[in-house]
Amino acid sequence: MTSESARQRQLTDEIAASGEAPAIAAAAALLEMGDRLGVLDVIIPGKEFTVRELAEYADLPETGVAHYLEAMESAGVIIHSPSTAGSFVTAPDYDRIQHQAGYVSWVMNANRPFIENAREYLSDPGKASGAYIRDGRQVAVSSQWMGSKAFYPAALGTIFEAKPERIADLGAGTCRLLIEVLQQLPGCCGVGLDLDAPSCNAAKLAGEQAGVSDRLTVVERSIQSIATDPSPVEGSDVIHAGFVFHDMMPEEEDVADAVFANCREALRPGGIMAITEAVPYLRNERERRFSSIVTYYHREFMKRKLLTEAEWEAKLRDAGFNDVRTVELGFPTGRLFVATR
Amino acid sequence: MTSESARQRQLTDEIAASGEAPAIAAAAALLEMGDRLGVLDVIIPGKEFTVRELAEYADLPETGVAHYLEAMESAGVIIHSPSTAGSFVTAPDYDRIQHQAGYVSWVMNANRPFIENAREYLSDPGKASGAYIRDGRQVAVSSQWMGSKAFYPAALGTIFEAKPERIADLGAGTCRLLIEVLQQLPGCCGVGLDLDAPSCNAAKLAGEQAGVSDRLTVVERSIQSIATDPSPVEGSDVIHAGFVFHDMMPEEEDVADAVFANCREALRPGGIMAITEAVPYLRNERERRFSSIVTYYHREFMKRKLLTEAEWEAKLRDAGFNDVRTVELGFPTGRLFVATR
Repeated sequence: MTSESARQRQLTDEIAASGEAPAIAAAAALLEMGDRLGVLDVIIPGKEFTVRELAEYADLPETGVAHYLEAMESAGVIIHSPSTAGSFVTAPDYDRIQHQAGYVSWVMNANRPFIENAREYLSDPGKASGAYIRDGRQVAVSSQWMGSKAFYPAALGTIFEAKPERIADLGAGTCRLLIEVLQQLPGCCGVGLDLDAPSCNAAKLAGEQAGVSDRLTVVERSIQSIATDPSPVEGSDVIHAGFVFHDMMPEEEDVADAVFANCREALRPGGIMAITEAVPYLRNERERRFSSIVTYYHREFMKRKLLTEAEWEAKLRDAGFNDVRTVELGFPTGRLFVATR
Repeated sequence: MTSESARQRQLTDEIAASGEAPAIAAAAALLEMGDRLGVLDVIIPGKEFTVRELAEYADLPETGVAHYLEAMESAGVIIHSPSTAGSFVTAPDYDRIQHQAGYVSWVMNANRPFIENAREYLSDPGKASGAYIRDGRQVAVSSQWMGSKAFYPAALGTIFEAKPERIADLGAGTCRLLIEVLQQLPGCCGVGLDLDAPSCNAAKLAGEQAGVSDRLTVVERSIQSIATDPSPVEGSDVIHAGFVFHDMMPEEEDVADAVFANCREALRPGGIMAITEAVPYLRNERERRFSSIVTYYHREFMKRKLLTEAEWEAKLRDAGFNDVRTVELGFPTGRLFVATR
């Protein structure tokens, strides 16, 4: 074998070793930078944009924006507009790039305080939940990127199949999911419940912009309050809750149980409760690594107890639901539990 | 089509969309955490280790270390020892996991100041190089992880083929590469040149531990100094330099040119200069994203000029080398230039 072909074989091995890691990391950094620059609102699929538009929108010098877009274009995250000289559009796989960036950004940036303070946490097992030391905005941005393709497609599928006339979302945030449901189901009314006032205000605004505000009720209340007053969910065909119940564990597990029992009571006969949650330490090849970091962050640093599939199923049965089934999600370590009254 | 099989198809799409991103990000976070905990010196391929050993080594409570290793084991980064109950060993693909983590850690953490201060840099194009605002240790750790499999295999291959009796490394750091060469080639002497005193001291120590200190000379000097005094490289068969010359561009490009000319003069007839460098904005599918972030970080934030393949080749020819060839590396956007006297 010539040294040339030996080198070729070595190169093939090197390329296989790095795999998608360099490309995935690079795209995450470019998008995070776009977020900090304030230009991502203008870089959206289906719209053309120019250096000047971004510079004006984000109040930045055109030269700087031109360099940033040069990097984004060379990376293939955006492309030159095929129809307008000097304009750009997002690459055909922009959604996927952003989705993958979400995982990197959530793990490596939104939860960075846990990495940097690992010694402190391990040295003091009694330390209080560190969830508060994270930057809430960066948790929200990275979660939105991750979630775009993987959190809720299964939940939405379940909801559309149920054809609800009335749906409630516990921990609705800015009511993205509810608004999507109301737009698809013209006869449906929705109630979005969230404790965060700015999110509730943003939800009302989004409902107006989407033309569904007459069918969307936004309630500024805690999920826990359903344990004592279930009126917001009364008469629902579907009650949805995405990644909110684990935040009550372990301290408020009895409150969560009371919320489940009240939800079951409040549902119309045949109605369903659909909850999306993270389950701990899965070991299959696809999910095990991401499952591990999600579990470890929650247990060691946020002091949260994640329930297993079997524990969630038992909890919903204990609340009086007859039929409980578990749905695998694309989002690794996530599961959708569908409980029928 | 049943809704069951529709959901199955949807799930397949979701899984394809996230690809390797969740797993790659998770492993990077677990390894970075291990670095901060100070346990990675004990988690090395080919050695068994226990919770107690790591706890003692890193001065951490055993419970905390046990939880960390539980996460590492569940992620498949380490595995239970097949021979000793209660002991762990690294997973068979540990090197690859660490190598991939290097890319994520370098892009998302070592260079994080550029992401977070992007607005400031773009708003002030005259701002000085930001290389100093990075954490040098985190740059070094992530570079070492990236480099383990991708920076120097091609350079090493070229060096071994040349069978040098005398080799010099410009910007040798802790002389890892030189020590590997001296161990493989018992008749060879090496000179490692670096400006950083702690690296030089670490290099001397490593040379002693590897049993090659009688053939290793460590010189605490700048690479620039070769432009006025080439004595350290005099009579070499091979002069190597990895990712150091771009740091002189653009301000000291004339100094770099003088260094190249002196290196050519100093080489024995038929001797070679082998330099590994990053080239800007490659556009092929494999390299374009990582190439983009490397180029953008260097240009916009570190104020460095990266030369193209053609520019490096011309520069080496201008220095008097007859034969210059370029070798593709597994490390995306990296190239090895081999110039023969």
